[in-house]
Amino acid sequence: MATDETAVLAASITSLNASTAEAFDTRAIQELDAAHFLHPFTDHAALRDKGVRVMVRGQGVHLWDSEGQQLIDGMSGLWCVNVGYGRTSISQAVYRQMETLPFYNSFFNTTNVPAVQLAAELVALAPPQFSHVFFTGSGSEANDTIVRMVRRYWDILGQSERQVVISRQNAYHGSTMAGASLGGMAGMHAQGGLPIPGIRHIGQPNYAEHGHGLSENAFGLVAAGWLEDEILAVGADKVAAFIGEPVQGAGGVIIPPPTYWPEVQRICDKYGILLVADEVICGFGRLGAWFGSELMGMRPDLISFAKGVTSGYVPLGGVLVGKRVAHALVEKGGDFNHGFTYSGHPVACAAALENLRILREERLIEKVALETGPHLKAAFTELATHPLVGHAESCGMVAGLNLVRAKGTSVHDCVRFDPALHVGMVCRGHMFDNGVIMRAVGDRMIVAPPLVMTKTEIDEMAARIRDCLDLTLADVRSRGWM
Amino acid sequence: MATDETAVLAASITSLNASTAEAFDTRAIQELDAAHFLHPFTDHAALRDKGVRVMVRGQGVHLWDSEGQQLIDGMSGLWCVNVGYGRTSISQAVYRQMETLPFYNSFFNTTNVPAVQLAAELVALAPPQFSHVFFTGSGSEANDTIVRMVRRYWDILGQSERQVVISRQNAYHGSTMAGASLGGMAGMHAQGGLPIPGIRHIGQPNYAEHGHGLSENAFGLVAAGWLEDEILAVGADKVAAFIGEPVQGAGGVIIPPPTYWPEVQRICDKYGILLVADEVICGFGRLGAWFGSELMGMRPDLISFAKGVTSGYVPLGGVLVGKRVAHALVEKGGDFNHGFTYSGHPVACAAALENLRILREERLIEKVALETGPHLKAAFTELATHPLVGHAESCGMVAGLNLVRAKGTSVHDCVRFDPALHVGMVCRGHMFDNGVIMRAVGDRMIVAPPLVMTKTEIDEMAARIRDCLDLTLADVRSRGWM
Repeated sequence: MATDETAVLAASITSLNASTAEAFDTRAIQELDAAHFLHPFTDHAALRDKGVRVMVRGQGVHLWDSEGQQLIDGMSGLWCVNVGYGRTSISQAVYRQMETLPFYNSFFNTTNVPAVQLAAELVALAPPQFSHVFFTGSGSEANDTIVRMVRRYWDILGQSERQVVISRQNAYHGSTMAGASLGGMAGMHAQGGLPIPGIRHIGQPNYAEHGHGLSENAFGLVAAGWLEDEILAVGADKVAAFIGEPVQGAGGVIIPPPTYWPEVQRICDKYGILLVADEVICGFGRLGAWFGSELMGMRPDLISFAKGVTSGYVPLGGVLVGKRVAHALVEKGGDFNHGFTYSGHPVACAAALENLRILREERLIEKVALETGPHLKAAFTELATHPLVGHAESCGMVAGLNLVRAKGTSVHDCVRFDPALHVGMVCRGHMFDNGVIMRAVGDRMIVAPPLVMTKTEIDEMAARIRDCLDLTLADVRSRGWM
Repeated sequence: MATDETAVLAASITSLNASTAEAFDTRAIQELDAAHFLHPFTDHAALRDKGVRVMVRGQGVHLWDSEGQQLIDGMSGLWCVNVGYGRTSISQAVYRQMETLPFYNSFFNTTNVPAVQLAAELVALAPPQFSHVFFTGSGSEANDTIVRMVRRYWDILGQSERQVVISRQNAYHGSTMAGASLGGMAGMHAQGGLPIPGIRHIGQPNYAEHGHGLSENAFGLVAAGWLEDEILAVGADKVAAFIGEPVQGAGGVIIPPPTYWPEVQRICDKYGILLVADEVICGFGRLGAWFGSELMGMRPDLISFAKGVTSGYVPLGGVLVGKRVAHALVEKGGDFNHGFTYSGHPVACAAALENLRILREERLIEKVALETGPHLKAAFTELATHPLVGHAESCGMVAGLNLVRAKGTSVHDCVRFDPALHVGMVCRGHMFDNGVIMRAVGDRMIVAPPLVMTKTEIDEMAARIRDCLDLTLADVRSRGWM
């Protein structure tokens, strides 16, 4: 930075430091943010005009911004703060580890105790076919690792022509080039020369979108059949793996019909293709089980994870490796030339160990399965009676509702809004302004609250959502869109 | 994991927890590690036979393993623990942030105070052409981001055909598929279908390897000329950027001749090509300046960083974005469809802010430039008199020495060992066994100690290194290799 600018900046930082002690100078923070911070997935010229919101504190399921507004965090940060904010025992575990050994690498025949403990604990929690863990720093790095690992697996087995990984449209598998290529987000593929070669995409098991004229179960078989079609089109001896989120998250909480995953599993088995479950969102209790695969009739060979493993308190990700792949890598593979400085980071692993202890000892996953998940479903079923809502769906602690111009008799004959109106974004604005964080994926409004959210808090969230649906309805009507 | 195995595992974890309180049961940890933890860049069958080393504690420049051995950490963890181990003020800053706001995302028009402060501080520290920061979770993600960002830049400017990124053989730019493709490591390219399209590699400015018959300065111009040759071969209107580490790290501490980077800069300017400095290793004082670019006559448009920004205490990386690219992205780019859950992680940013404060207030970078860097150079120059050492080089707090079968009169006429003997690995074994961590890159032995290492500690490290060179020499002679 040039010298004259540096002086101005130093003054700004100083005033910011002062402001953080008590009240916040929101305007100063916004200016500094606009001047220097490039945000993920953001139009910065638009953000500068609008002014960024500054989150300053969290406790339980609540957040506070720099203007003192309290918000119910319906999205668990970004699908990750499973145990809620303000968990002092995680802060303490992290502090103790930092005071002991804040970092050491796990290259060069070296290890550290929290990484070993966490690997063992994750394997103990995982389905029976898993034996090993490869640590990364994020879900993106985990899915990126998947591409290299499945290709390496087939190389070791002497089937190097098996290079293709099949994924799904609107899938989200991270933002590295390989992760974004695996993902099926058109907006990401339009920038930066994506996708990389050897990745194919099939349709998603979105009943509302594609299931017209079919029962849910019949549609599940049809959607799984798209995988077999693609395998045959590519050539079965060229396919390395199929990857999918048990329930698609960023694609809009797409809950597949019960027939879908068992049929996908059957097809993978038939052709000997590896099945990869991306559990970055679904893992660690989100759906009411340790891993979403367990609920969905999947028997994956690999699981990518991140987010809920530490509840986001410290960045961590990884790949759970099943015995089939681990045996090849360990016994026949020699060096796997891959890994990250922060693979098995002792502080991140210490945070994860304490987070898993909380999930286990507070029986949060059982609570989601038996109490809060069903309560959230009932609340969203009730919200579906709102005139703006076509239908609602939920699974464990994720739920979505579709905003429509006119209700129908089934999910297939609602009248939708023109997508160019961005009604979902209008609704999201009302939600934020009125203290509840929901995410809009097109006109589908979604939540994924912390697993600690109580029934009372679910009721409070649902009430705020209903109020904001009313505000959105009035807004949409006044604009003449309905 | 199957039920019977789970019971055994649970018992192992319990005994491990007990053991961490005081003494460590190294054998139990090794068994659990071998059973469940897949390490980066490791042959696991070989590691299982050998038994992994367990690092349990760090303080200053020292580490202790589970057997009670003290080691001088000549590699700063993995080029990252710049302020040394045991920095309670970083642990405290992290604890405070975790108690306030342990996570929030910076998507959806939201920010947090530590991320804004860190973006501003990094810009203040960076060379004058920088204005913005894009945060990631690692150096791999930073370099992966670089590929998407430089291509997006040229898209915005209407020159979408500029897709090619030129890099160098033996470069290291991380382990995501795009990072490893940018890197020039043959062993990584041999696994997983790398490199991705649009990446080209030129020779590295390794005077000892390629400079025979030339002065260092003349060789620097020749090596920079390889870039122009490649630009013309690809077509200048198809090249997006050139990326390089100011001093190549994992490639073996390759310090380029003084003429190299200014000539590379001139060539980039001539063809309008973006210059990217990978400062993941060189940044934050490693070479005796905040950024290596400043010493090397580079004026980069983008800088990737990680490691030293937090001294590795919490995973963090990012890209410093110069005004040229930032202006296009912000003013003309609309949404940049890229980013990570942990981009701008408040806890990681809090760790970085305290780490930067330490670097600044303890004047560690000035010390490296004026005191400890020159002292390390003198120590390594002295080590070059050892019969096993061909020559030594250093720059700030990185240094390397080449093991040779017979010395020569210059770097070009030493007699090398057969690479198949892996003399470097033999030497590394003696170093670890005798309490000093050096890394072997082929037969080049390298160090990158914490920036807090004192002159006395440098002398102690050099003495241990000399002892281990003696042991290696005796070993090599007894094997009849010399």
